[in-house]
Amino acid sequence: MIKVAILGATGYTALESIKHLLRHPNVEIVAVTSRQEGNTPVSSVHPSLVARLDLPLEDLKPEEIAQRADVVFCCLPHCASASVVPTLLDAGSKVVDLSADYRLDNAPTYQEWYGQPHIDSDRLGKTVYGLPELFRSQIAGSTLVANPGCYATAAILPLAPLIKAGLIESDDIIIDAKSGVSGAGRNPKLMAHYPECNESLSPYNVGRHRHTPEIEQIIARHATTQPEVIFTPQLAPMDRGILATIYAKPASGVTEKHIDDAWQQAYGQEHFIRLVDHLPGTKDTVDTNFCDLTARLVRGRLILISSLDNLVKGAAGAAVQNLNCMHALPETTGLL
Amino acid sequence: MIKVAILGATGYTALESIKHLLRHPNVEIVAVTSRQEGNTPVSSVHPSLVARLDLPLEDLKPEEIAQRADVVFCCLPHCASASVVPTLLDAGSKVVDLSADYRLDNAPTYQEWYGQPHIDSDRLGKTVYGLPELFRSQIAGSTLVANPGCYATAAILPLAPLIKAGLIESDDIIIDAKSGVSGAGRNPKLMAHYPECNESLSPYNVGRHRHTPEIEQIIARHATTQPEVIFTPQLAPMDRGILATIYAKPASGVTEKHIDDAWQQAYGQEHFIRLVDHLPGTKDTVDTNFCDLTARLVRGRLILISSLDNLVKGAAGAAVQNLNCMHALPETTGLL
Amino acid sequence: MIKVAILGATGYTALESIKHLLRHPNVEIVAVTSRQEGNTPVSSVHPSLVARLDLPLEDLKPEEIAQRADVVFCCLPHCASASVVPTLLDAGSKVVDLSADYRLDNAPTYQEWYGQPHIDSDRLGKTVYGLPELFRSQIAGSTLVANPGCYATAAILPLAPLIKAGLIESDDIIIDAKSGVSGAGRNPKLMAHYPECNESLSPYNVGRHRHTPEIEQIIARHATTQPEVIFTPQLAPMDRGILATIYAKPASGVTEKHIDDAWQQAYGQEHFIRLVDHLPGTKDTVDTNFCDLTARLVRGRLILISSLDNLVKGAAGAAVQNLNCMHALPETTGLL
Amino acid sequence: MIKVAILGATGYTALESIKHLLRHPNVEIVAVTSRQEGNTPVSSVHPSLVARLDLPLEDLKPEEIAQRADVVFCCLPHCASASVVPTLLDAGSKVVDLSADYRLDNAPTYQEWYGQPHIDSDRLGKTVYGLPELFRSQIAGSTLVANPGCYATAAILPLAPLIKAGLIESDDIIIDAKSGVSGAGRNPKLMAHYPECNESLSPYNVGRHRHTPEIEQIIARHATTQPEVIFTPQLAPMDRGILATIYAKPASGVTEKHIDDAWQQAYGQEHFIRLVDHLPGTKDTVDTNFCDLTARLVRGRLILISSLDNLVKGAAGAAVQNLNCMHALPETTGLL
Repeated sequence: MIKVAILGATGYTALESIKHLLRHPNVEIVAVTSRQEGNTPVSSVHPSLVARLDLPLEDLKPEEIAQRADVVFCCLPHCASASVVPTLLDAGSKVVDLSADYRLDNAPTYQEWYGQPHIDSDRLGKTVYGLPELFRSQIAGSTLVANPGCYATAAILPLAPLIKAGLIESDDIIIDAKSGVSGAGRNPKLMAHYPECNESLSPYNVGRHRHTPEIEQIIARHATTQPEVIFTPQLAPMDRGILATIYAKPASGVTEKHIDDAWQQAYGQEHFIRLVDHLPGTKDTVDTNFCDLTARLVRGRLILISSLDNLVKGAAGAAVQNLNCMHALPETTGLL
Repeated sequence: MIKVAILGATGYTALESIKHLLRHPNVEIVAVTSRQEGNTPVSSVHPSLVARLDLPLEDLKPEEIAQRADVVFCCLPHCASASVVPTLLDAGSKVVDLSADYRLDNAPTYQEWYGQPHIDSDRLGKTVYGLPELFRSQIAGSTLVANPGCYATAAILPLAPLIKAGLIESDDIIIDAKSGVSGAGRNPKLMAHYPECNESLSPYNVGRHRHTPEIEQIIARHATTQPEVIFTPQLAPMDRGILATIYAKPASGVTEKHIDDAWQQAYGQEHFIRLVDHLPGTKDTVDTNFCDLTARLVRGRLILISSLDNLVKGAAGAAVQNLNCMHALPETTGLL
Repeated sequence: MIKVAILGATGYTALESIKHLLRHPNVEIVAVTSRQEGNTPVSSVHPSLVARLDLPLEDLKPEEIAQRADVVFCCLPHCASASVVPTLLDAGSKVVDLSADYRLDNAPTYQEWYGQPHIDSDRLGKTVYGLPELFRSQIAGSTLVANPGCYATAAILPLAPLIKAGLIESDDIIIDAKSGVSGAGRNPKLMAHYPECNESLSPYNVGRHRHTPEIEQIIARHATTQPEVIFTPQLAPMDRGILATIYAKPASGVTEKHIDDAWQQAYGQEHFIRLVDHLPGTKDTVDTNFCDLTARLVRGRLILISSLDNLVKGAAGAAVQNLNCMHALPETTGLL
Repeated sequence: MIKVAILGATGYTALESIKHLLRHPNVEIVAVTSRQEGNTPVSSVHPSLVARLDLPLEDLKPEEIAQRADVVFCCLPHCASASVVPTLLDAGSKVVDLSADYRLDNAPTYQEWYGQPHIDSDRLGKTVYGLPELFRSQIAGSTLVANPGCYATAAILPLAPLIKAGLIESDDIIIDAKSGVSGAGRNPKLMAHYPECNESLSPYNVGRHRHTPEIEQIIARHATTQPEVIFTPQLAPMDRGILATIYAKPASGVTEKHIDDAWQQAYGQEHFIRLVDHLPGTKDTVDTNFCDLTARLVRGRLILISSLDNLVKGAAGAAVQNLNCMHALPETTGLL
């Protein structure tokens, strides 16, 4: 059994990770940590876990965690994560980091978008980006995996194969994305206060959301020119789900069939990418690790639509998929 | 024009009051106050008010408010309200208090349920309870009106005439009530955090909600024996609306027709009470000052159902109705 | 592998059954039927099943179904179910009937509440009511199990042990229940049209909901006097979940501790009943087969609160639990 | 008093029209019609209207309607509208047509997008498009006004002044729009069935929504080259509201200030257009006749955001505004 600890267990990505790991036949959860809620049962914070996980929340040092756990799911906020990951790795644990701390390749970009210097910048550029559909072989041999951002996954999965195949131009990409409110985390704030966001659809951080450089960095690896994306996140009145509607300029002569073929070639053997003909709603993928993709060519512009669950394929499910990949388990283990 | 100031203008009852007062032909809003947000436009806190109310939030002393306003809508939290109301009254303003501070008749009950001594206890027992359908004549001559609690209105309106007519027993009343989340106020808190309360129905404060003594006090005035109610509040995933499902024991021989007749006699001329045959949902009354009532006799037990909007008939609409009543205006002014 | 067919596969209980059975290690789904949608892939009706279940919807005769399947999950409407179940049983299939057709013990009660004579009335009174927590041993040996109604489960589970232990009076029970909209089925109708039921809480079928006789019949088995319940169903604006708030008169001297003890004795070893101290919301049990229970004694009246997912513990999850029970598998198989 | 009849009174735009007209000081509602529900009170179909509008639904001939009404709000489906409007006009009524029948300028385009020949095609090209902010003077003198589509209003209002001022290119416009479910009408259908669309965001009719030619036709009047828009409608889980996120290519050297200036010049005196600095959510405009606009220049692309209530500024409110305009009343009458 793989012993897994969950750091920062009071949030939604942690809860979702726990639920998935409880179903995983090769995993045992050995610790759940919290600084604020130390020594109360985890089910007192997450009542859905009563009778499912009988562990206390503990305020553990990284060394203590590493003693217990083979793998650590790090669900801490950005910056907090980079302050414990080095110790965990040094002590021999593997880490799937669900924060943003190890996603970007260089420290200046991190500082630009996150407003703070990176305290473990040597690992930037050497840490694998945990999207198994693109970087499976590197993940397999890694001890640290940077789990992708939810919006980033919804954007990169449809775009990367098309960029790589030269089917779309990399400098004219518009990503209009809509997310459920769980993406805003579990700390109460006005933006996510029920009477504020219920029955409303609202844009936020237009042109300056932190998943922007993450998207550009990954698709740049498949592009010949430096990509530039316009990214508009919008909050939708639902718990979960991301719908990304992406507008791209096709290369000359490109048809829907070219798109389908490129996706088929890239993802035809992938279990968690579903290439569909219909227009997928977020409900089709909610509570699953699937990402549904479809494309339409409308008046010379390509419309790519992706749907996924921000807490599963966009966070906890991807983390489990990475864990499976790191341990040479079938990638679907615990995820169907 | 009646000059009205809104105290504590950042919350939902204040916002709803403002929207209603802007439609009122005899009212001019002259001040909106806030301690935290002083000197920003009210529309910066409530973007729906852009181009509708061009006033800054001000941190004003009660004396300053009284100089400007004929009537003050006091939307402060309980305890805070009682600390300014005396000064406002002394300075000559009339006050509609939307907090709980002047609803109860005696100080010990207040302290028991609100956990603090009342700092203006002399006015308890002398302040009229602002339910025009029951206490219209006293409201007309008052300078201070205690605007009722939202749940309390939903419970008292159906019960009072039946208690008074001796049609139901006053010591076996069960009030199962469900409220939209705006009832929890505008300060972010976990209970009202979208991903916590969305897609969930949850009981809270069972048997110890503060509207309990308020309900009992008012229906006691119409009863021969001291009433005792069981009150179960529940949070429903919607912005607004209260549905109260009330189970009462009918006196011997009482039929649905007796109930209808008693309600007809009490409310037949009331504009804002609608006696309906169908089962009303909260959506029927949302954004209105109506309270819909219906009754069913099922296996010897009376089921009384009331539906209203917690922010309108349960708060701001009732406050406007009280203002109309205090100024001898038609009660429906600004409310249709 | 147990071969399972799903009859009436276009509805929500069928979809939920399929999702659970796909996770079940001992089950293979061999057929999904529909009269209207014959010969289209099941995923064309349920897009969430793309790449998960690769079967066409077929319009099969009962004999054909029985040839393929060891067990049939019958998700047909009431009356339709009783028209195929006899043939299925005669042909050697076991049946878990998710309709109401075999829940009641006698034909006149069926006709009274369902408005039609029962066409297989000989099996009434002989068919086990599929609530494993109460009737496990009979289920184990049965070829036909009547899967309980969702509201009925939410009411019976808290009540039965208390009635049996003589802790509450059986003739003064009020069940105020609230359900998510999936309980209304998948056929479009005005009541479940989004702009009608969203942002609204509405009572329906007050005093005449068809789960009433089902509840009374089962708790009667544990009572000394004929029970009579008052049952008020209400539609809440959420996909799933039932919250039942039950008001019962305790026998003399009964305390909360007595209730807890009786539940502990009845359910202490049950995996899917969680006896909790806090007030459970429906979100705590959603997407699980758990039923959460708690009790409060308020002013001489017992308030019992149960929370479950109407599509899981209230339908498909219970059906899988019954299947497990019928095949001597651990009851939790496929359900955690 | 202006006597107004509502044709097709059972739908949502009709209900919203009634609610607004009831507040209008110069209007009396004299008839509400329905073919299916003839001779039942309108409040039996719309329970929110109990005690507010005491009229029966009637199945009236156009001639009968014209005898009673000065103005007819035609809320019939497309095609149905064009079959009665000529008679209404001939009989001397003025008409605000809330259907799509008179919005397009030519019959072939109508047939292409609506799948049927237009039966009153002589009026196409001569009927004013009822957007007072753009066509006020023509509306003032008209007897027939084509009330704009909801999406079309959300797109045209931000675009028209910018096209006219030459600030954006007219052939590279992407409109990513999200609408509440009331936009799908009141007839139950699977797409708007609560458990299908709740908790989901889903694209539909991508590239082939019928508001596309309407948008292009109107902005073409302000453009030098034929505009071509890409329009992606998406259903959001809320009752009301449209958020249009529009991506346009700015002309060389254009800044956010140019956009603001052009809007200021076009709309600075408009009561119902609010030019805001913040990013507006749909909740800011819900239940109002406002349209909020803001712009961002991100990486060389203009992002225009508009928010309005599809049933108010997108339908009934615009209709009342048109009625005011046709009768030389202040345009805000009944709308604040």
